[in-house]
Amino acid sequence: MGINHFRRDDRDFKFLLFEHLDVDRLLGYEAYQDFSTDDFKMIIDEALKVGREVLGPALQDGDREGCTLQDGEVKVPASFHDCWRTLAENGWLAPSHSPEFGGQGLPAVMGGIVAEILAGANMAMMCYPGLTVGAAHLIEVHGTDEDRALFVEKMYTGRWAGTMCLTEPDAGSDVGFLRSKAVPDPEAGDPRIYKIEGTKQFITAGEHDLTENIIHLYLARIEGAPLGTKGISLFIVPKVWVNPDGSLGEPNDVSCTGIEHKMGVHGSATCSLSCGENGSCRGILLGEPNSGMAKMFQMMNEARMGCGIQGVGIAASAYDTARHYAKERVQGPPMVNRRADRVPIIQHEDVRRMLMNLKSGTEAMRAMLGYIFILIDIARHDPDEAERHKAHSRVELMTPLVKAYCSDFGYLLTREAIQVLGGVGYCSEFPAEQYARDIKIVSIWEGTSYIQSLDMVGRKLSMEGGQVFQTWIQEVMATTSEFKEDADFGADYKLLFKAAQATGDFALRYMQYFQGGKVPLIGLTSTRFLECFSEVVLAWLILEQGRIARAKLAGVDASSADGIFYRGKIETAHYFCRNILTGVFARHMTLQQEDTSALDIPEEAF
Amino acid sequence: MGINHFRRDDRDFKFLLFEHLDVDRLLGYEAYQDFSTDDFKMIIDEALKVGREVLGPALQDGDREGCTLQDGEVKVPASFHDCWRTLAENGWLAPSHSPEFGGQGLPAVMGGIVAEILAGANMAMMCYPGLTVGAAHLIEVHGTDEDRALFVEKMYTGRWAGTMCLTEPDAGSDVGFLRSKAVPDPEAGDPRIYKIEGTKQFITAGEHDLTENIIHLYLARIEGAPLGTKGISLFIVPKVWVNPDGSLGEPNDVSCTGIEHKMGVHGSATCSLSCGENGSCRGILLGEPNSGMAKMFQMMNEARMGCGIQGVGIAASAYDTARHYAKERVQGPPMVNRRADRVPIIQHEDVRRMLMNLKSGTEAMRAMLGYIFILIDIARHDPDEAERHKAHSRVELMTPLVKAYCSDFGYLLTREAIQVLGGVGYCSEFPAEQYARDIKIVSIWEGTSYIQSLDMVGRKLSMEGGQVFQTWIQEVMATTSEFKEDADFGADYKLLFKAAQATGDFALRYMQYFQGGKVPLIGLTSTRFLECFSEVVLAWLILEQGRIARAKLAGVDASSADGIFYRGKIETAHYFCRNILTGVFARHMTLQQEDTSALDIPEEAF
Repeated sequence: MGINHFRRDDRDFKFLLFEHLDVDRLLGYEAYQDFSTDDFKMIIDEALKVGREVLGPALQDGDREGCTLQDGEVKVPASFHDCWRTLAENGWLAPSHSPEFGGQGLPAVMGGIVAEILAGANMAMMCYPGLTVGAAHLIEVHGTDEDRALFVEKMYTGRWAGTMCLTEPDAGSDVGFLRSKAVPDPEAGDPRIYKIEGTKQFITAGEHDLTENIIHLYLARIEGAPLGTKGISLFIVPKVWVNPDGSLGEPNDVSCTGIEHKMGVHGSATCSLSCGENGSCRGILLGEPNSGMAKMFQMMNEARMGCGIQGVGIAASAYDTARHYAKERVQGPPMVNRRADRVPIIQHEDVRRMLMNLKSGTEAMRAMLGYIFILIDIARHDPDEAERHKAHSRVELMTPLVKAYCSDFGYLLTREAIQVLGGVGYCSEFPAEQYARDIKIVSIWEGTSYIQSLDMVGRKLSMEGGQVFQTWIQEVMATTSEFKEDADFGADYKLLFKAAQATGDFALRYMQYFQGGKVPLIGLTSTRFLECFSEVVLAWLILEQGRIARAKLAGVDASSADGIFYRGKIETAHYFCRNILTGVFARHMTLQQEDTSALDIPEEAF
Repeated sequence: MGINHFRRDDRDFKFLLFEHLDVDRLLGYEAYQDFSTDDFKMIIDEALKVGREVLGPALQDGDREGCTLQDGEVKVPASFHDCWRTLAENGWLAPSHSPEFGGQGLPAVMGGIVAEILAGANMAMMCYPGLTVGAAHLIEVHGTDEDRALFVEKMYTGRWAGTMCLTEPDAGSDVGFLRSKAVPDPEAGDPRIYKIEGTKQFITAGEHDLTENIIHLYLARIEGAPLGTKGISLFIVPKVWVNPDGSLGEPNDVSCTGIEHKMGVHGSATCSLSCGENGSCRGILLGEPNSGMAKMFQMMNEARMGCGIQGVGIAASAYDTARHYAKERVQGPPMVNRRADRVPIIQHEDVRRMLMNLKSGTEAMRAMLGYIFILIDIARHDPDEAERHKAHSRVELMTPLVKAYCSDFGYLLTREAIQVLGGVGYCSEFPAEQYARDIKIVSIWEGTSYIQSLDMVGRKLSMEGGQVFQTWIQEVMATTSEFKEDADFGADYKLLFKAAQATGDFALRYMQYFQGGKVPLIGLTSTRFLECFSEVVLAWLILEQGRIARAKLAGVDASSADGIFYRGKIETAHYFCRNILTGVFARHMTLQQEDTSALDIPEEAF
């Protein structure tokens, strides 16, 4: 058991849930009527405890020990076995999934908060439950009653694990080109059973020794199916075949042929899988033939939210590491008086700036996650169909922001944490450098940031004739009008107004580019548009938090714990707008150049 | 011997040296009169060959094997021994140092180019020669004839190595608080010999098995000396005592008590050293008592240029890895025709954008290095004292930019390279992720980016009553006036004009802040000022290159190798101005907010 470095506190989660977001609305829904806010508070506290006592101490162990492959079997870091057991026994694997199959039935927003806490404590370890639950949920939604009975509860409760097998050596971002194939197996006596043949690469948790079975959700093309994504089907491919009575049968001809040596998340086994090498790999068709991509998109959408959670969770842990270190480490006299005694480095301006990047970035991204998860709950459970629809559309609109922005900005924030720690940050005693190594994958898997930005401009901006985006930006504009003369936040709202305008201008130009044959200009700038859009969302939410904090501050002692928290929140809102949101203007100026140098340059000049 | 991934080509170095910079001027100096441009070309080609054949193949080995400490002895990666031998035998250790002591006597700019090539091939390995030569040069400049005779040649030629011992566990950025002490050793019979006692931390190459001796340049306080940096003296502390006849004597009571586990540069041993544990560590005072910091600054200034070189060298290698991969990897149809065949990813807009970030960032930073190294040569050798003085001042002004900007931006560029490679970039088959891990230390050691920015605003801006900075910015302004209506580069020069104006405004505001008691605002923004200043320098130089390329293009076939290079350079200049330089405006907008939220926030709110 290693040293725990996980030191997240509960305050910002509780502010978000009980003071910022409308969690009472959720408690009015039938699905959540048995819960109370006290339950939610207790769950947050317990999740933090699991982070500190179980997952956190396995963080550095997992990194150093990594995974090993021998004779086709993968061993995970020793301490991960304890983690898995604790998570499984205490219902932490599927907190917001169906109680019918062993989940805890909590609102999605609570699932998101728990996931942020646990991923922040040990991202590599949490890859195993993340994929297991995602895979099980796909079976729950799209499987037959028999599939559900066979697989889902065993997965939600951690007896079996799961994966998501998309990528192949020659098909990554363009999954439509995959080569795995499926042919009906007449001997099986069940038309849903196919023989599977193919190889998969970069399969997270593709093989490990945490569970007696692993249920792969596997994309393959049924022989004769159309080319491209339209001919892809989804199969349940258990590592060990499952008999109709639920008992384990024979091994299913799925073998792990390699694991990757990676920059980070060493404890998470990234596997190459070979299916059907001996001609005896079987899979169960999930849903209709050729409907695999659509189904996989459900899992991918959940996974994209999960990526945002990883980004924020790791960034928040990097922040915790940096702030604690900065309060303890004494170095250098203050800038304004070089003859004074040395001070804790948190008193140095630039350290303070870096900590504010970490604090405001983390809290604003967390607010975005919370905001969207509440919308997910509304979309699922609100009695009013129009409300459900509106919430669902906004979730669709913003999911790419969560995936791309939180992963990219999260990585940049880990850089700040390393820099706060200085030479110590470059060494492995503290996990600052590990956070940077762990988080980097998040902007790549589940669709790179570019893929997210193309989803945004290609599909999301035009949803419902552009209304979903426009309704949102009008809401932002209305808020800026309301508060632009505000005594405390007026300057911030003016910046937000300009930034929202610039973001709107991006969207408008893109419409013109689509129409005017300037499509390449979109691809050249789409990741930057996504960043602008994200930062406007973040500023909008953090300013909302700032105003709430101001109102609450009036009712408490300014030097009490709450008073200090609220004062901190107000400054955090200022900081974000004045130091991070300003990045929008640089990107917008670039957009205005309509620069095509990256395309005009001859390819041979690279 | 591992696989070589170093694939730098010669073209941009030769363009910089022979088409952009005025290298002929150097050939007119007495010190360099024996060289010809052909010599320089050959040296570039040979350095690239050493990179490919010797250093490159040891890159991944060095990372995987790392250094080991056993019984106080450090073993470097096995392949580093070959590297050291080749470098030493062929004069690559001290290419631009004095031939009198075994150096090659090349101009500083050639030393810089060679160093960029070699560091780009294997940064961890090149830490050993870098410190050796820096330490030897200090002895050459400040030592007695006897010191010079005893140490310098053996170090320039690689028989012995060297280090620079500043940092202690309790004194990092504030080196003035170091505790190592020195007392005269009456038994030595030489007033320059002292007994040394103390511990040092984070000493790069502090102990290793590459050479029979290691010469530490060691900062300590002579008993009774003033506190702070004014009471620090510099000592030559050999690992093995050197007899007056040059032969090796007894071990000198310097022991390695630990090595660090780091994010990267695993092959570079980062040591904790303990001196005088048995009361028998001796050091030779270098120069006058209490003059240690001033002398160390010489070495630190060289080391800061060396950091810039590391930043550019690694970023350039990341670019090479990304561009080659992007040309070979086929994935996805083009955005403008989703039904077409899949294409090499270099044809995708966002990949192209990332490659342009890497290309333009690397080439612009390389131009800055070359520009400053030429000034170093002028400052040393120009017959005209006024010219020497002007060049020297500008070098002083810009050294912090090189150190901080090239290391910070270099790190960001490695992120782009990882992203170009996607999942493969996160794995260790290609060194993309290693480059990110290796380069991160550069923004920390030899003075963090914040320290550089304080040096800039606290010392450099006010040099000669502010004239050094102002003369430079007026030069930039004059160039922008000249070319703002240029048919090809007018739009770029207009951006440069605005960016230079914004940077000038920063400097002006800082003067007001100093006078008006708003000093903390400087510390909150100084790293951003340094970035703005750097980007204006880079844009100014890359546009100069663009104009040169345009003129040359007129005289060659546009589809020839030269033609493609020049066309590439023109687009690179556009790209830099329109996509990277625009960042200045975001930072300037932040400055205008005069935001103090990072200081106003209660410390307990972190």
